[in-house]
Amino acid sequence: MNKFIPVYEPLFDGNEKKYLAECIDNGWIGANGPFVQKVEKEFAQYCGQKYGSCITNGTAALDVTLKSMKDMYRWEDNSEIIVPTFNIISSVLACVYNKLKPIFVDCENKTFNIDTEKIERHLTKNTKAIIMVHMYGLPSEADSIKQIAEQYNLKIIEDAAQAHGLEYKHQKCGSFGDASTFSFFTNKHICSGEGGIVLTSDEEIINKVNYYKNLCFTKEKFIHYDLGQNLRMTNLQAAVIYAQFEKIEKTIKIKQDLGNIYQDLLSDLPVKLPEKETPYAKNNYWVFPIIINDYLKINSKELATKLREKNIETRPLFYPLHKQPIIKKLGYNDNINRPVSENIYNKGLYIPMGLTLTKDDMKYISDCLHQILN
Amino acid sequence: MNKFIPVYEPLFDGNEKKYLAECIDNGWIGANGPFVQKVEKEFAQYCGQKYGSCITNGTAALDVTLKSMKDMYRWEDNSEIIVPTFNIISSVLACVYNKLKPIFVDCENKTFNIDTEKIERHLTKNTKAIIMVHMYGLPSEADSIKQIAEQYNLKIIEDAAQAHGLEYKHQKCGSFGDASTFSFFTNKHICSGEGGIVLTSDEEIINKVNYYKNLCFTKEKFIHYDLGQNLRMTNLQAAVIYAQFEKIEKTIKIKQDLGNIYQDLLSDLPVKLPEKETPYAKNNYWVFPIIINDYLKINSKELATKLREKNIETRPLFYPLHKQPIIKKLGYNDNINRPVSENIYNKGLYIPMGLTLTKDDMKYISDCLHQILN
Repeated sequence: MNKFIPVYEPLFDGNEKKYLAECIDNGWIGANGPFVQKVEKEFAQYCGQKYGSCITNGTAALDVTLKSMKDMYRWEDNSEIIVPTFNIISSVLACVYNKLKPIFVDCENKTFNIDTEKIERHLTKNTKAIIMVHMYGLPSEADSIKQIAEQYNLKIIEDAAQAHGLEYKHQKCGSFGDASTFSFFTNKHICSGEGGIVLTSDEEIINKVNYYKNLCFTKEKFIHYDLGQNLRMTNLQAAVIYAQFEKIEKTIKIKQDLGNIYQDLLSDLPVKLPEKETPYAKNNYWVFPIIINDYLKINSKELATKLREKNIETRPLFYPLHKQPIIKKLGYNDNINRPVSENIYNKGLYIPMGLTLTKDDMKYISDCLHQILN
Repeated sequence: MNKFIPVYEPLFDGNEKKYLAECIDNGWIGANGPFVQKVEKEFAQYCGQKYGSCITNGTAALDVTLKSMKDMYRWEDNSEIIVPTFNIISSVLACVYNKLKPIFVDCENKTFNIDTEKIERHLTKNTKAIIMVHMYGLPSEADSIKQIAEQYNLKIIEDAAQAHGLEYKHQKCGSFGDASTFSFFTNKHICSGEGGIVLTSDEEIINKVNYYKNLCFTKEKFIHYDLGQNLRMTNLQAAVIYAQFEKIEKTIKIKQDLGNIYQDLLSDLPVKLPEKETPYAKNNYWVFPIIINDYLKINSKELATKLREKNIETRPLFYPLHKQPIIKKLGYNDNINRPVSENIYNKGLYIPMGLTLTKDDMKYISDCLHQILN
């Protein structure tokens, strides 16, 4: 039996240990430490935004961003937010916790990003914003989304959790939103186990985020005019982020090389492989999703089980949000089908894409896939 | 001018650096890492509970605990939770975010903990639980609170954020609640910058906490039946906590020594010093609060300003929750005075109590206080 191949493994071969030791030596391990400040400043700059605010994780970053923008623009309760249905639950949480209503739009079949041609049919007079998510390694159609946003006077929240260093028309993801959020979860191109950041060029948004993430403390210590949360990130997390950020281009190169190897190894399989590129972007392969051809009887769950028996870990693709049991419970379901998302969930999964993956691992994975699918 | 004396400084002279390096070497920096598991198991054991669940911070720990217990015991919306009014905002947040109503009880003048004689007058048929907070270094009257809880069939949530290793009748704080929460914020006896934990001996509570803190993931990955949050703690934070936990008795000793020195230096001042001990406990001096005698005209704000001019940092005491602007905004205010809490806020502050404080620092602080107050 081949050794276990995890779906992801990070790589800490930079200054991670050195910077963590610095935190201990100078006693700065909590929020507002020097690495937190450096990440906020330099990562914002890298992504083409003016300000950054480090947050405990990407889910919380999205939550505090919507909270801040709802407050700032005085969106009423039940205002509607456009959300790609093919997506992790975090954007639903951000909406619901802020008494906003998520409206789900299907994805397109090529990049799994929101189908921009289907957005307008979901707009109402209560729509306030679009959450633009970049999925798996290829960016959303930023220009089309910006055009719709301008036409209908909507704000854009850019969820770039999976898109560190990714470019759309040679412009960095994270630069397109009125506010943008990132995650530094273990499997991200820049990782610190858990972590997140909000970026924006709007001073009022960043001030609100900093207020709400710090328990709504004011200058009069311990007097509160609003309800906040503690979403502060530690300097320890920021130290690792900073070390990872220093080698982001190298990480992207590794992932693209891995992606290209898979493309060659798997090209003859009866599966849809990710696009190597679109007219606007090169894939940076956050993960490597494959979609089993419709005519094969096997579904993604069965394929995952068979691969697991061969010591290969996989992950299902996102379960469409409009189908989630919690959405039904909340009464946010409708009778509209989103067939593309539903199909790719049933027929898709992603295969190992860790930074320490070897060519032998990939050859073994390819052999197993050929054996199962042919 | 004397050098700046911060109100708190941590001390990292144990295995902090070694354990952080281990995280990087073995690649485990995220949630569920070995240090997270060790902290959950061993800290629970130390505090006399069966289970632990590491959380991003103490505020979040309280939030997810109330969420779990509300769900488990099927408390209706607007159920009432007894909360000491002399307290940080976190218990209000935990109540409000879970649609529970905080009911504020004044503190007693000796230890600043909830006045157990005033609890019963605030109970109604909708009261479901008491949040028992241990304030500043001396424990709440656990026996009285437990007796009231039994008599009226209330649950106890023990907020031991400030009470690592503190004992009440030779039993560790954290062992008295149906669930207990701790904070590992920078100024705590065990610190990791940010961090928290929920302890309980109830398997159902810990399962709920683990469910809600991890986005309500189920075995069917990415399918959600409930709304959760991401409140996972990193292995990096847990590594520092574990190193600090190893030397908790030494830390308590340092703080008690500092406390005793202040007691000697300041005994002749017209201020109320903290109790060295109560019939049930020895002070472990999380912080060192002083309350200016009523007959002096100076209030805490003025004293803080004068000390700051001498490069001495202080913190105000907690602003009573029942007086908070946000409580009025939420309609949770009433016309009941809580005079003890109101007075100690006006007349109290706490002075530097960092782990690296020297005798010279303390002598200087004492000299300044004598100069200002005499």
